[in-house]
Amino acid sequence: MLYMIGLGFMPEDISVRALRAVRSCARVYLDTYTSIIISYEDMRCLMEDVLQRTDLIQCDRKVVEQDEDSIIADAVQHDVAFLVAGDVFCATTHTNLYLKAIQQKVSVVVMHNASIMTAVSCTGLEMYRFGRTVSIPIFTSTWRPSSFLDYYLENARLNLHTLVLLQMSTKELDMDLYCEKGLERYSNPYYLLPNQAARQILSLVDEYPDTYSQVSTDTIVIVCCRVGTDTQQLESTTLGRCALQTDEYYGKPMYALVLPSPIIMEQERRMLELFTDDISVKNMLKEITR
Amino acid sequence: MLYMIGLGFMPEDISVRALRAVRSCARVYLDTYTSIIISYEDMRCLMEDVLQRTDLIQCDRKVVEQDEDSIIADAVQHDVAFLVAGDVFCATTHTNLYLKAIQQKVSVVVMHNASIMTAVSCTGLEMYRFGRTVSIPIFTSTWRPSSFLDYYLENARLNLHTLVLLQMSTKELDMDLYCEKGLERYSNPYYLLPNQAARQILSLVDEYPDTYSQVSTDTIVIVCCRVGTDTQQLESTTLGRCALQTDEYYGKPMYALVLPSPIIMEQERRMLELFTDDISVKNMLKEITR
Repeated sequence: MLYMIGLGFMPEDISVRALRAVRSCARVYLDTYTSIIISYEDMRCLMEDVLQRTDLIQCDRKVVEQDEDSIIADAVQHDVAFLVAGDVFCATTHTNLYLKAIQQKVSVVVMHNASIMTAVSCTGLEMYRFGRTVSIPIFTSTWRPSSFLDYYLENARLNLHTLVLLQMSTKELDMDLYCEKGLERYSNPYYLLPNQAARQILSLVDEYPDTYSQVSTDTIVIVCCRVGTDTQQLESTTLGRCALQTDEYYGKPMYALVLPSPIIMEQERRMLELFTDDISVKNMLKEITR
Repeated sequence: MLYMIGLGFMPEDISVRALRAVRSCARVYLDTYTSIIISYEDMRCLMEDVLQRTDLIQCDRKVVEQDEDSIIADAVQHDVAFLVAGDVFCATTHTNLYLKAIQQKVSVVVMHNASIMTAVSCTGLEMYRFGRTVSIPIFTSTWRPSSFLDYYLENARLNLHTLVLLQMSTKELDMDLYCEKGLERYSNPYYLLPNQAARQILSLVDEYPDTYSQVSTDTIVIVCCRVGTDTQQLESTTLGRCALQTDEYYGKPMYALVLPSPIIMEQERRMLELFTDDISVKNMLKEITR
């Protein structure tokens, strides 16, 4: 049996049902590749604290992408748990694990949990008024895709909000070093910060002013930091102001942005107002309230 | 302090963190108005089992909509928990409770949990390819709104999937009896069933053939029953086949439908195929795979 278990945003977000399943499992894996909201150390502490076991197995990229078969081989023999931050199927990698397990006649039980995709409702923006979710990649000098802004414009045209996820780079293998010398050297995890994301957006607006004429330094953005944790912070601001912040300003990961629809509802405005002291932002929110 | 706690789909989906908070609370309310996935009886049993307390307070429509102030008055004095099936802010009612609490200087801690809006990823359809979520109301002889189908067409045009929530009617007060005789008589909860929803959709297609020419008895639909629970069932079928089923066919609530986008990915097809033995449905899935 394979239990695929969503953990939400903190180790203690694990459910009573999931804990009971984990207790019965011979092996317990934690995916630290597709998400790093929940660290190996923190999850191991929770398991020790609540279940008195310390045998949590960390799955980095290599395990998740290449050693899936060994997880499934385990699950043929024993009860095995695979723990994932957020909800279970937010990464297609996990759908792949599910499919492989089913093909090998392993029973799979999925336990869902909180995901940023609905927790973003903590901003007060109505879930029914969100369009497709987009992701901003970390730009390099040669790779600056803009399709996420096109999707945002489509949402805005339909008067829908846009949840903007910010790419992170997990422990990546240095492929050059690996191929040349066979050395496994990994980079530190890296997150696209809200201020950097805002700068990337505004740089695309500079580059394609006609295409993105609707977007400017005055575009309202809700910066969401560490949603669902004890240190959650939300800020209603503008892209221009967000872009001017220092790298330290928004604190530790995780982050997400919301670009609200061109028109917001009265109750949505009352919530968004809670997250700013800036009079001009409050006035801008009033102007877009229906 | 007010703890607003998402419960997910079953009482045991409550998190370790939420349980710890509930343990410290003087009063514990369960919202049985905006959602009835988690029954009062089941939640009370879980609380008795895990926390040895039986003082759970049921909040029906009257309490949630009219007696919010008494919940907040409680929270001014004591630690109070307000439990909600799914995630916390999926109903605007709860945003209202949050706002009122903040206005009265009550600290609020929100604990998120699983919601159908991301758990629908159990179908294998990618979360990034969902557009706005729509709801089908229970049609009456005089009230047959079709805007949800317009939203579906918008999603389909953008090659996005559509999550379709089916309206339920909770314990509604018989207003005639209440106004005339002051008697509080409540109706039983009522759910729009998947087969009824499919019939409603097809009846709109009959009525407005030009507007909805893209929709027909051959439109693929994924019927999702009791997602996230032990008795979850998924079925890949067509609107025509779904409409022909009996009222008993899909078992107990909750239900949701997914109308996949006009084009699906290879991995999505492999998942959707798991949920049908019908060769013609499998062939239709192949035809729409990119």
